[in-house]
Amino acid sequence: MEELFLTWQLVRLADCMREKMKGFKELTLVEDALRKMKEKMTHRIQELEEVDLLSALGRVCGENVLAPIDSPPYDRSAMDGYAVIAEDTFGASITNPIELKLVGRIEAGMNSECVSKISRGQAAEILTGAPIPAGANAVVPVENAKREGNVIKVFQQVHPYQNISRRGEDYRKGDVVVRRGTIIKPWHIGALASLGMSRIKVLRKPRIALISTGSELIELEKEAEAGKIYDSTKPMLKSLLIEHGAEPLDLGIAKDQLDDILAKLRYGLEHADAVIVTGGTSVGEKDLVPEAVSENAEIIVHGLKIRPAKPTGFAIADGKPIFMLSGFPVAALIGFQVLVIPALEQMLGCKFDPKPKVKGVLTRRVASPPGIRTFVRVKVFKDEEGRVIVEPLRVTGSGVLSTLTRGNGLLIIPEEVEGFDEGDVVEVELLSSIEFNSRSA
Amino acid sequence: MEELFLTWQLVRLADCMREKMKGFKELTLVEDALRKMKEKMTHRIQELEEVDLLSALGRVCGENVLAPIDSPPYDRSAMDGYAVIAEDTFGASITNPIELKLVGRIEAGMNSECVSKISRGQAAEILTGAPIPAGANAVVPVENAKREGNVIKVFQQVHPYQNISRRGEDYRKGDVVVRRGTIIKPWHIGALASLGMSRIKVLRKPRIALISTGSELIELEKEAEAGKIYDSTKPMLKSLLIEHGAEPLDLGIAKDQLDDILAKLRYGLEHADAVIVTGGTSVGEKDLVPEAVSENAEIIVHGLKIRPAKPTGFAIADGKPIFMLSGFPVAALIGFQVLVIPALEQMLGCKFDPKPKVKGVLTRRVASPPGIRTFVRVKVFKDEEGRVIVEPLRVTGSGVLSTLTRGNGLLIIPEEVEGFDEGDVVEVELLSSIEFNSRSA
Repeated sequence: MEELFLTWQLVRLADCMREKMKGFKELTLVEDALRKMKEKMTHRIQELEEVDLLSALGRVCGENVLAPIDSPPYDRSAMDGYAVIAEDTFGASITNPIELKLVGRIEAGMNSECVSKISRGQAAEILTGAPIPAGANAVVPVENAKREGNVIKVFQQVHPYQNISRRGEDYRKGDVVVRRGTIIKPWHIGALASLGMSRIKVLRKPRIALISTGSELIELEKEAEAGKIYDSTKPMLKSLLIEHGAEPLDLGIAKDQLDDILAKLRYGLEHADAVIVTGGTSVGEKDLVPEAVSENAEIIVHGLKIRPAKPTGFAIADGKPIFMLSGFPVAALIGFQVLVIPALEQMLGCKFDPKPKVKGVLTRRVASPPGIRTFVRVKVFKDEEGRVIVEPLRVTGSGVLSTLTRGNGLLIIPEEVEGFDEGDVVEVELLSSIEFNSRSA
Repeated sequence: MEELFLTWQLVRLADCMREKMKGFKELTLVEDALRKMKEKMTHRIQELEEVDLLSALGRVCGENVLAPIDSPPYDRSAMDGYAVIAEDTFGASITNPIELKLVGRIEAGMNSECVSKISRGQAAEILTGAPIPAGANAVVPVENAKREGNVIKVFQQVHPYQNISRRGEDYRKGDVVVRRGTIIKPWHIGALASLGMSRIKVLRKPRIALISTGSELIELEKEAEAGKIYDSTKPMLKSLLIEHGAEPLDLGIAKDQLDDILAKLRYGLEHADAVIVTGGTSVGEKDLVPEAVSENAEIIVHGLKIRPAKPTGFAIADGKPIFMLSGFPVAALIGFQVLVIPALEQMLGCKFDPKPKVKGVLTRRVASPPGIRTFVRVKVFKDEEGRVIVEPLRVTGSGVLSTLTRGNGLLIIPEEVEGFDEGDVVEVELLSSIEFNSRSA
């Protein structure tokens, strides 16, 4: 009996130690973390840059852009035919054609004044895109009339403004063409060009400082060394930042030493709109990042209810965020998705494109602890019958990048779901396109 | 009776004229057009460019990239704890701890040789990421042992290789890391970096010549002129090409004159991998593009069973494609999606990311002629109850860009469907993110 009691005490002790060493004070739900970020992260990108249209592709529109002119700038013919006064054609039919006198011809690119004002009983030959001459208010398509010398016979009536692209039908002067916060797409560029606007004001790119921590890391360009590994998370995060319209500011690798981390952190806060620190963010002996961060900022969240990437968190210094992401590349990617992307959206007042998703049949059971959002890396492919198949990849660590390069999707298991069964139809976020019948190794 | 017969004859005549003037010899199904392109378009991008990792983002991988080393390059500890010989811990429990002698300490970044080989009965303190010292084959987590001077008491057994990230567990030397034809994403960059590879060979960008036709067009930078409109389709197509990893070669605006179009076409075929000609591709009087193209190339398809953008087509010259797209920007965008994107994929041997899609409830009926693929521009938004609503936008012309800037999606009605009813749940291709409760005007 006494021995049992001792065992119980030891179990409790071990649990306590585990809590102390491995645990986080409190894990936060993603939803709550984002709510806190919305509240505490007050820093915003405000400065505008004027750029030419092509340079604006993918940038965030900095102001409500108003149409400076009507578009189209004049009434245009929508087809080849004859500019007429619609009322002159009323009652025209094949058995009762109406004759009109041709007084000129107008082609696209000509000034409408090259044809005199159309009066009752008159018509002008007109080609697609040409301006409607004064007096005319409709176009009879060429196939509904027959020309005989200087006269046309109209076989079908047209109503006023039929076959005319009206001035301002696309945009009226003063219409909002592109709203502030819009991510500029090819069709915005087309719309601005149609209005003669060759430059646009966009928000400057947010500058995001990147600090890797870990004495075992070496920069990509350096020689390999025993006991060292290449820093792969920083180049990955840099490219993620570039993809999301931000400008990475590489502050290099900090050794697992408080003063080294602190110095870089301060530099980052001074020179960037946000700082991302990777590695050293867990609760082990060399996990110095939370300590360094807390000297500069208020830690808002440390430890998220997600898997992988639990040791993710963020702090706020003067309204600017400091993100603490895992040093493991896959966990860092998930931390980036969960925290950094929403922060960039908030800072820029924009909304990035939704990720493509697909539904497919799961090949084997995947589990998730209750209350935890789990990100399962999967391979999505089509089988012989064209069904979309979702195959979870076997993973041994959150550092295993090959699950992303061999796979092509993320199955996100929400907090309230404890997993999915084999054969379940699940929705997957696609990282790249679906291949046909290409099972993973 | 005779009059009726005459009427019938005239109706037939008018129909014939309409056919002749407005019609295309034959409209082609998208599917058939793509099959013909696969067959006839033999031109491929083969030349490689070696670039640094960040410059490779979004480019097409030019070769199968093999891992030059194992990754991780050595067995690493996955946690803070004690490197041990697993067999020494067998049977350890809280009531029966096993004692091991501490012979050193190893941190991440240290060479494993800084600790002597671990023998039976020995252990070394080890931190996350540090190399496993010779002799050891497992790590006891710090919370499962207690240190007393130079001795540790182990409370829980570990099996061989427990808590160790194995050498090569991510990639083994010689594994394919990135396949030829892959579009390089942030995780590929992470994977290549983890292997110490700072440069990668990508396919050179395809160079696509752009020719606008239409005497009414003026270049964006020019002064406005009566009877002229700004060329909005070319800047839009340029940005679409850039988005799809191609390099636009701007050949300017050709007047509606055969020799002008011909000269630009020949220049484009000589200096680019493909040519896109916009405008003048229908069957009106000034639609000279098909004639010009047929002097240089074999017209494979002219007129597609799609709406809008029917006057879309392509020709082949020495295996290179010449695309004939509508001059109207929206129709040109759809022609680009339908023909140019698959051609770029074929030329590069890649597959672009799938477009994000969403399902929502249609607010009013949309119709489509049988056998025609119809692209309906829609506004997608969430209503008060969080339901996704799909509202078709009223359109008066295929040139109306505002339907793309005010809307945010394309509802594609397939050939075999004649439309959708109000209340139907339809799938929409998203052009940008869904807004909350923001009905269009």
